[in-house]
Amino acid sequence: MVLITSSLALAACGNLQSSGLGSTSTTKSKSSVTTTGQASDGEYQGVIKKGKYLTSKSRGVSQSQDDNTYNLKSFENGLLSISKKEFATNKYVFQEGQYLKKATTQNWLARQSKSNPTGLNPKDNGEKSETKRNPIYLQQLEEQDYMTQSGSKLSLSGMTIGLGLNQIDYYEKEQYGATYETKISEATRVAEGKKMANEVVKRMRKKSGVGKVPIVIALYKQATNDSLVGGTFFAYGVSKNGSNSITEWHNVDQKNYILPAVNNAKTGSGKASESFSNFKTQVQNFFPNLSGVTAQTQYNSGTLSGMKVSITTQFYSQTEITSFTQFVATEAQKYLPTGVPVEITISSTSGVQAFVARESGEKSYYTHVFGSY
Amino acid sequence: MVLITSSLALAACGNLQSSGLGSTSTTKSKSSVTTTGQASDGEYQGVIKKGKYLTSKSRGVSQSQDDNTYNLKSFENGLLSISKKEFATNKYVFQEGQYLKKATTQNWLARQSKSNPTGLNPKDNGEKSETKRNPIYLQQLEEQDYMTQSGSKLSLSGMTIGLGLNQIDYYEKEQYGATYETKISEATRVAEGKKMANEVVKRMRKKSGVGKVPIVIALYKQATNDSLVGGTFFAYGVSKNGSNSITEWHNVDQKNYILPAVNNAKTGSGKASESFSNFKTQVQNFFPNLSGVTAQTQYNSGTLSGMKVSITTQFYSQTEITSFTQFVATEAQKYLPTGVPVEITISSTSGVQAFVARESGEKSYYTHVFGSY
Repeated sequence: MVLITSSLALAACGNLQSSGLGSTSTTKSKSSVTTTGQASDGEYQGVIKKGKYLTSKSRGVSQSQDDNTYNLKSFENGLLSISKKEFATNKYVFQEGQYLKKATTQNWLARQSKSNPTGLNPKDNGEKSETKRNPIYLQQLEEQDYMTQSGSKLSLSGMTIGLGLNQIDYYEKEQYGATYETKISEATRVAEGKKMANEVVKRMRKKSGVGKVPIVIALYKQATNDSLVGGTFFAYGVSKNGSNSITEWHNVDQKNYILPAVNNAKTGSGKASESFSNFKTQVQNFFPNLSGVTAQTQYNSGTLSGMKVSITTQFYSQTEITSFTQFVATEAQKYLPTGVPVEITISSTSGVQAFVARESGEKSYYTHVFGSY
Repeated sequence: MVLITSSLALAACGNLQSSGLGSTSTTKSKSSVTTTGQASDGEYQGVIKKGKYLTSKSRGVSQSQDDNTYNLKSFENGLLSISKKEFATNKYVFQEGQYLKKATTQNWLARQSKSNPTGLNPKDNGEKSETKRNPIYLQQLEEQDYMTQSGSKLSLSGMTIGLGLNQIDYYEKEQYGATYETKISEATRVAEGKKMANEVVKRMRKKSGVGKVPIVIALYKQATNDSLVGGTFFAYGVSKNGSNSITEWHNVDQKNYILPAVNNAKTGSGKASESFSNFKTQVQNFFPNLSGVTAQTQYNSGTLSGMKVSITTQFYSQTEITSFTQFVATEAQKYLPTGVPVEITISSTSGVQAFVARESGEKSYYTHVFGSY
């Protein structure tokens, strides 16, 4: 059984919450389906089958798809956020994709060809020039299943598939040769993405067990390889009532920025940049040796939705780490934007030493210094 | 100003607390002394002077003293714990040692010799044999100052000095040669430690500004170089009323263990070992690929006082990390010992991915998955 001290503490720090399915089942019975438990109100529970986590049928495919690891994290986390718009976390349980197998996903991600008729990327037209060749539009693809519980059984009640689409396709003219770039215009990316979305829905409807559940297809713009922040979602469509295509499209206005600005890039709202800049100045003054302080920010529909700050500095003792962490929390409270979740990691050359975070909906910061006996 | 949502949330997760000194002063005034803010009830605030953290006068000395980095962390954190017995966190402010300079500390840590009359370690007797040579007893030394506030001024009101004493002295017979070991008996270690403690008190009393403040000398047994957990404190003495020696000694019964046991080593209480073993089994079953699960435990006066669990596994996606973290929190709640702080770090080959912790005095776990946009 899971104990809860109070609903306040729970909302405050994402403390472990009890959950109907997770807390009453046992993972010892070999036939039972249970869940991972719910970390906080706004998170899905995951499916455990026969005592093991039900991993994705296409596990490991996405890892090899991307040279920029920020794209992997932001694609998967963003896909969960899009799903939450259609599948409420208190009603649905998250299951790693079970309908697209590894081989299928790999085929879909490849170019269409005689030997690979299901490839979603265009045929190789034989051209090598940046502007004449057919680029790879689709870089990554991921399925997420949303289950509902009826008695002790979970059944598929929704599905989300994310399509990660390139703004730049990186390619080599010869193996191990130089890397060239084919730029893809926004109009082309949007059009190709929506076309693929309809094709994917059509194919999924034919799969046994999918039936008439709502299918969400989310379109993601991959960040370029040199980006210090991942890409962003720009649209999602829903196929309802068992339709073979998207029945309604929604625009998603999402933007990511890096602070301080790199090469005069845009930084989002001036207010957030300024408050970060003040915070950075305070933190960098703290030690005689300067700290590196950078942040990723995300905006949804023009409004700041969160900030992830990364601080790197050299520490000479545990007490310096503890004092620095306290100081960072104090300055974050003073300077960083209020009303949005903020995550601050404090690292040395030997890894993360401490972290400071204000969770969604909270006013105060949680601090933790990693220790050892 | 620092906002507090509720005293419950504060106790629950070490949220940032307001503090008389820290929250009213400003770090902008060049002449002001402020503090870092207090992370939680049981932690000291640190001193900020002229906008910068007041680092130790012997900064960096300890880092070079030890081949086992667990000794560094556990020595410094343990020293704070010992200090808390004499200097209450709500009354005293922590200041990095300002009375022992780097050169002084280095001289004290070295052997006594004609050119170094203040060396606390014995003279080199010219012997090379493990049993005949004079070993290095004192491996590390650290000063911590405890200040009290009067108006806007902080003044020294207490001091703690830790002495890290070897159970094995590792040495080379020739430079870059093989490493040999001189074992130091418990009786010798205790006797040498107490003798040094009195000598250190005598020397500190002569330093300008120390006056008659209470001086705590804490004696620490260094873990061996191959240990996967740091050493432990075994005694501390207090010099009161300006005395030139320790006026009272206290035994400290502290033990550290590793779970699961390595080479049939002792593991502390059978109950804690068993509960950890059950937890480990559940966690290792979660993914098809096994996870590495180990723990450090600490006992004070025979009672478990905390557990630090380290889990390493391969992840294939962000959703796996999130689900695994939820599961770990659920199983920790079910199996791990209650009533003591537990820290669980979840890492992949690319570093810490998430962490789960139950802070001192709490019943529920806090979870955090590190993300990026």
